Amino acid sequence: MLELLTSATPNGWKTSILLEELGVSYRVRAISLTDREQKQDWYVALNPNGRIPTLIDHDANGFVVFESGAILLYLAEKFGRFLSPDPEERSRAIQWLMWQMGGLGPMMGQATVFRRYFDPKLPAVIDRYTRESERLFGVMDTHLASHAYLAGDYSIADIACFAWVSGRDWAGIDIAGFRHLARWADAIAARPAVRRGLNVPPPPEDMAASTTRQGKTILS
Amino acid sequence: MLELLTSATPNGWKTSILLEELGVSYRVRAISLTDREQKQDWYVALNPNGRIPTLIDHDANGFVVFESGAILLYLAEKFGRFLSPDPEERSRAIQWLMWQMGGLGPMMGQATVFRRYFDPKLPAVIDRYTRESERLFGVMDTHLASHAYLAGDYSIADIACFAWVSGRDWAGIDIAGFRHLARWADAIAARPAVRRGLNVPPPPEDMAASTTRQGKTILS
Repeated sequence: MLELLTSATPNGWKTSILLEELGVSYRVRAISLTDREQKQDWYVALNPNGRIPTLIDHDANGFVVFESGAILLYLAEKFGRFLSPDPEERSRAIQWLMWQMGGLGPMMGQATVFRRYFDPKLPAVIDRYTRESERLFGVMDTHLASHAYLAGDYSIADIACFAWVSGRDWAGIDIAGFRHLARWADAIAARPAVRRGLNVPPPPEDMAASTTRQGKTILS
Repeated sequence: MLELLTSATPNGWKTSILLEELGVSYRVRAISLTDREQKQDWYVALNPNGRIPTLIDHDANGFVVFESGAILLYLAEKFGRFLSPDPEERSRAIQWLMWQMGGLGPMMGQATVFRRYFDPKLPAVIDRYTRESERLFGVMDTHLASHAYLAGDYSIADIACFAWVSGRDWAGIDIAGFRHLARWADAIAARPAVRRGLNVPPPPEDMAASTTRQGKTILS
């Protein structure tokens, strides 16, 4: 049995979407970011960074994986899906996964922090992260103008980037003007497994409350 | 022949250190960030994100790899070194590599931007990124209190994190108080290949000028 400790944030959705796509059975433990459960000793013993998500593979002696990007790679390799066995196509997917990990995620995360939570409101900083996130949307849009997906077939690279693109409204990033990106996002959003993954863990409250918890994580 | 397009920044050093550790022959093309060479059409055709570094594997039909984390993984797998073949130790190294890509690098990068370049100076923002970088130093320090390296033997995870830790002065992050981290950094800094890698490309000017170029990249 796989166990996913997660919350309703883009980094959590990356892993729940992949688990749904794989169609494997897994158990969800919702971590309350509002209650700072991810900073409790028992959680930090699993995930030294004190962030979500964390995967526990009970079929592999309780092996623990932290960092959403590492969970995607672990699961893709464990089940041999959503990552090509071809070395070059595989590397291309990893390149876009790394690009999401080092660029799209952090910049949209910072846009969210300064737009939603940071006090005082600093327009120059909000503008910096909004523009950088839009630049990154543009990088994907240009690539997707001539590619159906980021790296060959639909892969963990698409899942990783999609989870962040799906959080664009909360981060204040506008997809208008990026029509290739919008076409790609619509195609992924239509996948039943993606819709299920975006509902893990099921929201106990409304969307605004969920994303509030997300912002607090990023700030912590 | 391998070709590395790079500049004197932590993300560049990650890749040049690994190439030196591997002891393989490679050609360096220094990219001038001052001249925004990484935004020129010929470069963006190789690296859609317009950032350094980029690897071209001329022994694999000119296969191109962008994103420093993806280059580390590509080279480690190509040569079968600095990444364990054991699935769990390998995953642990990838977890720390992802942690560097998504956390340590972006947060130290933002600390550098707001400390060195952003106008006006915003003490609350500088403080945010300094504290977050120090928190991340603490995560490594706690782990290294009971581990010689981040994930088993010396690996691409250590190389990735070391390159950023070695840029701590410029980012304004103090290693004092993190004695396990300092012990680990000293051990890595003593490796001849690491010393060589930190000198790629050879600095045309002084350190301050090199890191100025780095900051402009991050801001771009």
